[in-house]
Amino acid sequence: MIVVKVGGGEGIDLDAVCSDAADVLKTGQKLIIVHGGSHETNLLSARLGKPPRFVRSSSGMESRYTDRETLDIFTMVYAGKINKYIVARLQCLGINALGLSGIDGGLFKGPRKPFVKIVEGDKVKVLRDDFTGRVEQVNVGLIRLLIAAGYTLVLTPPALSYEGEAINGDGDRGAAALAASLKAERLVILSNVPGLLKDVHDASTLISHVPRDEIDRYAEYAQGRMKKKLLGAREALGGGVSQVVIADGRTLRPISQALEGKGTVIY
Amino acid sequence: MIVVKVGGGEGIDLDAVCSDAADVLKTGQKLIIVHGGSHETNLLSARLGKPPRFVRSSSGMESRYTDRETLDIFTMVYAGKINKYIVARLQCLGINALGLSGIDGGLFKGPRKPFVKIVEGDKVKVLRDDFTGRVEQVNVGLIRLLIAAGYTLVLTPPALSYEGEAINGDGDRGAAALAASLKAERLVILSNVPGLLKDVHDASTLISHVPRDEIDRYAEYAQGRMKKKLLGAREALGGGVSQVVIADGRTLRPISQALEGKGTVIY
Repeated sequence: MIVVKVGGGEGIDLDAVCSDAADVLKTGQKLIIVHGGSHETNLLSARLGKPPRFVRSSSGMESRYTDRETLDIFTMVYAGKINKYIVARLQCLGINALGLSGIDGGLFKGPRKPFVKIVEGDKVKVLRDDFTGRVEQVNVGLIRLLIAAGYTLVLTPPALSYEGEAINGDGDRGAAALAASLKAERLVILSNVPGLLKDVHDASTLISHVPRDEIDRYAEYAQGRMKKKLLGAREALGGGVSQVVIADGRTLRPISQALEGKGTVIY
Repeated sequence: MIVVKVGGGEGIDLDAVCSDAADVLKTGQKLIIVHGGSHETNLLSARLGKPPRFVRSSSGMESRYTDRETLDIFTMVYAGKINKYIVARLQCLGINALGLSGIDGGLFKGPRKPFVKIVEGDKVKVLRDDFTGRVEQVNVGLIRLLIAAGYTLVLTPPALSYEGEAINGDGDRGAAALAASLKAERLVILSNVPGLLKDVHDASTLISHVPRDEIDRYAEYAQGRMKKKLLGAREALGGGVSQVVIADGRTLRPISQALEGKGTVIY
């Protein structure tokens, strides 16, 4: 089993991802797709007169400020537009795909943060209307049931809080929790960068291999969302996944290339 | 098994539907919910500068003109916002709900219309970019698999065309096809009217009982979307469902009241 996280950043070609996924699936390899939708959410938010707002925690992690209205927009894009686009595309390619969000059947569950401390300039603020949280539990029984029945799963945030609310849980870390729960051989994280770069502006500085016990040392090169990908990689490896590949989702055969070792391989 | 179609018209109180559904489920009665999202789709379309357009076929049926962009909006609202709202609400009430669209696992399948003939004034026009179709097949195996595992299903259009495209398939007739495939005892169709009225402007003219073989005679009272509900009712009864109730979805206990016989009972 391979878990493929498809990022939602600008430049990811979902049609290429789907046709490559179909090719890989037809070799008999089992895949689960987990996807994001960040860029499309930004676009829809802006069109609806609710420009996206990103906040930075005191530990330096950036995340989307997700109030009730943003949660609706987020859910429409992730669980509606993108999830069903991928499912229909795969169905069209002869793959019996089935899409679920993290709230369906309590697929991805975890605590909603009671408040979020953010840093703005030199001030610390507390947000209490932010629907974000962390994925702690994966409904592995549901996943195994559907895989055994022949379905290819396409999964997406939002996750479900323990109180039964939809929450914006990070997709990279959700995919990592999933890969760990399933004891997947590999987790492939596709985004709109070639992998972990020493210099974020220079693709030729790609770091091709990172031994697991040196993640912390390499983390100093991570900017923005790459920090969460490394955190996800560490969590997946800690949970029993053999290998994580952070690779470019903008190529024609992004999954195949990642499986061939292109990108940053963490082992 | 009872199939409950929850209309997407203005005035339907989804919170009341969910809490009533939870109460009914806790008595041991099995329910499947199929929902619409018409009003919310109109609102989002208008906000996005793409006002909804309804077209009338030569047989007098009105339907949403669903070009590619409208299909995206439709999918975001139906499979994203409303489906996940209902699922989260039920989860919050202790029901292990799971939402699927008709494209997931080929749940609702049928032919996309190659073109749609519409009447505008005294002119007949042909639309070729309309993603609409009819539900002919229901993946009963998938439904039974998930019900047997303890999940309460929340289903929604779009459906999947035989060519693997998402299509706007009518929700009432989809629910009827589902009820027939499952040999459900009853199909409850909730909308924002009390049932079939002799005079659409006067709720006191409710027709409380319609024998199955007199549907055609009563169909003359049906206006707008009520025509599709009667068509759905006829299809469900023809497929082996014992009773169809067309009832008001705007009350506090809409499912319970319909099961008690409030509304138009077709048998």
